[in-house]
Amino acid sequence: YTPVLKERDAEGQWRRVPWELAGQSYDADWRVFARSAADSKGPMTQFLVALDILAAAGVQTGFNLKVIVDTEEEKGSPNLAATVREHAELLAADMLLIFDGPPHASNGPTVSFGARGIAQVTLTAYGPRVPQHSGHYGNFIPNPVFHLSRILASLKDAQGRVMLPGFYDGITLDAATRNYLAAVPDDEAAILATNGLARSEAVAPTLQQALQFPSLNVRGLAAAWVGDEARTIIPATATAEIDIRLVKESDPRRLIGLLRQHIVELGFYVSDGEPAEGERSEHFPIVSFASSVSYAAFRSDFDAAPGRLARRGMRHLFGEEPILIRTMGGSIPISPFVETLAVPAAIVPTVNIDNNQHSPNENLRLGNFVEGIAILVSILSQPAAEP
Amino acid sequence: YTPVLKERDAEGQWRRVPWELAGQSYDADWRVFARSAADSKGPMTQFLVALDILAAAGVQTGFNLKVIVDTEEEKGSPNLAATVREHAELLAADMLLIFDGPPHASNGPTVSFGARGIAQVTLTAYGPRVPQHSGHYGNFIPNPVFHLSRILASLKDAQGRVMLPGFYDGITLDAATRNYLAAVPDDEAAILATNGLARSEAVAPTLQQALQFPSLNVRGLAAAWVGDEARTIIPATATAEIDIRLVKESDPRRLIGLLRQHIVELGFYVSDGEPAEGERSEHFPIVSFASSVSYAAFRSDFDAAPGRLARRGMRHLFGEEPILIRTMGGSIPISPFVETLAVPAAIVPTVNIDNNQHSPNENLRLGNFVEGIAILVSILSQPAAEP
Repeated sequence: YTPVLKERDAEGQWRRVPWELAGQSYDADWRVFARSAADSKGPMTQFLVALDILAAAGVQTGFNLKVIVDTEEEKGSPNLAATVREHAELLAADMLLIFDGPPHASNGPTVSFGARGIAQVTLTAYGPRVPQHSGHYGNFIPNPVFHLSRILASLKDAQGRVMLPGFYDGITLDAATRNYLAAVPDDEAAILATNGLARSEAVAPTLQQALQFPSLNVRGLAAAWVGDEARTIIPATATAEIDIRLVKESDPRRLIGLLRQHIVELGFYVSDGEPAEGERSEHFPIVSFASSVSYAAFRSDFDAAPGRLARRGMRHLFGEEPILIRTMGGSIPISPFVETLAVPAAIVPTVNIDNNQHSPNENLRLGNFVEGIAILVSILSQPAAEP
Repeated sequence: YTPVLKERDAEGQWRRVPWELAGQSYDADWRVFARSAADSKGPMTQFLVALDILAAAGVQTGFNLKVIVDTEEEKGSPNLAATVREHAELLAADMLLIFDGPPHASNGPTVSFGARGIAQVTLTAYGPRVPQHSGHYGNFIPNPVFHLSRILASLKDAQGRVMLPGFYDGITLDAATRNYLAAVPDDEAAILATNGLARSEAVAPTLQQALQFPSLNVRGLAAAWVGDEARTIIPATATAEIDIRLVKESDPRRLIGLLRQHIVELGFYVSDGEPAEGERSEHFPIVSFASSVSYAAFRSDFDAAPGRLARRGMRHLFGEEPILIRTMGGSIPISPFVETLAVPAAIVPTVNIDNNQHSPNENLRLGNFVEGIAILVSILSQPAAEP
């Protein structure tokens, strides 16, 4: 049983061939709206249906299957790594295929080879103990917003490149890698237009190249109140929430250390939590620095076993190479598990890109649901040995 | 009838002499807690009681009194200036005494000669049209927090001095003025200690001198979310709410213009409101700039008529010069009215400094209530001619 879905339409977009489901025809653009429809009751169901199809067709896989289902993935998989460590012998394998994560933005069939990791830093600059009247004390009591702004403004140049020396160290993109990255059908002009932006950041010449580097982002910023709630005070604190996306070459502790060292070199006293009484009276200006590493990045080679198998299955099904994503920009909490298992991994997304996961109106597009089953059937029915 | 309250205690603090009220002795530290108790049912009542006392004692004031009561002061006195203009002949006067505003922080008897004005600027830097995933787009979609931070960090040096060229122009403090300012019993070390600060801003060597200069304050700052609400996104916008406190020498439109011009010189495209579609696709980076002037500063000379009268009354009552405040740091909405009337003005506060005006637990301290009546009686019973 080897389904084939190979047409593209006249504009080169992947064409969703109408299938039948339980004898009823359906529109591939219909969607099931339900909590967890796409993330990840959908992939779980697709996998079980694919196994049923293979069994009904009498197809024997060319390899043994070991299946891991983690019901705590949305909690950051707190027990997965330890469980895998405990059962390392039982789980010994040649490769790992992960049925999770979004496909490429074009919604075309995708195989991904890694994902960026993520670390967080919270910076809080300290002014007066409580907000003070900006008239009575303006020009006398220091405002923490200016201190925080001095730090943030020194982190990136006007083109968006991180200025911390060494932040991008260790990353090289050779010609072969750049070719793989260039093959990804990103429409950068459309991304910019959709977002109402005249220019992108200048970390790298393309989006795919940029995703191979760590990023430094201020995801939230707050001091006192704005808008209708604004009041004429000198804020007590100013806070920036930073996330650092990591790539395989990034040691998260090294990058966090670079940031902290830079702030010290700017002349700040850096406290580990809210500054104590004695620290406040001794030091100026003060910023607290709290960091955590959620998970490191991971990345397997394009030509490692799981990627080769997934690509063969995709080529068989679609008649051409899928979109190959070297490093997904986002972070997925299975990376500690991938590290623990220490086998090469590839990610095979089986749901639509616009599934609103974790958000209102989560949905699974029927065309992608069926196509995902076909993808799994095709991959699982490939012979173990390279043709 | 000329009450005298001249004792200070052993530590040099103003001593509240126990009075009797309607034949009952009371503790001067008792307080009436009520909305508007201090701002400004108290001063209104004090003034009427002072007139009753003078009438009962058969005292004729040495001058005519014209009384203006504005019941819309907390709304910014929207009709006061026009009303005064309309009745300018009726209100023609030699001097203006204002019974409002807080006394000096020490709660000692105070006469103030002016107040800073206030203008506001709202800056909003623009990133993607809606928040975007910091993983999928980090290193590609520009983050408006960094743009806003570049602006804010360029406004003040690390010591808190505004770096906009010309911001402090036109302000000179001659030796006589510096002497007046030095006589104000500020306890700067205590202010810093209370606020948990090791250092003040370096605009001027003392708090009172610093209040003679305009200030530039970020009263609120926001982009996306912080703390428990933080999510890993690139914010769509980053906003800073700025207030500029003005002094008599400051033309508010000139200072606002300096700020706007500086932002243009930094390389920003400055829009007047939310940028239009065409602006977003053409320009980068974009910041919107909205400004308003609430009211200008005002200041009368130390030796103008109202100040001389108030000081004579205070000296008679307390046996020594009151605290003389050249420019109150805060702003009071009567300045447009003072300007319209075009007579010299002095402010005579008659309530306690810690009255929590505009806040929960507003209160009027009985000692200050009685002392304020005594102050008004003493001032109003001074002869018109200088002794």
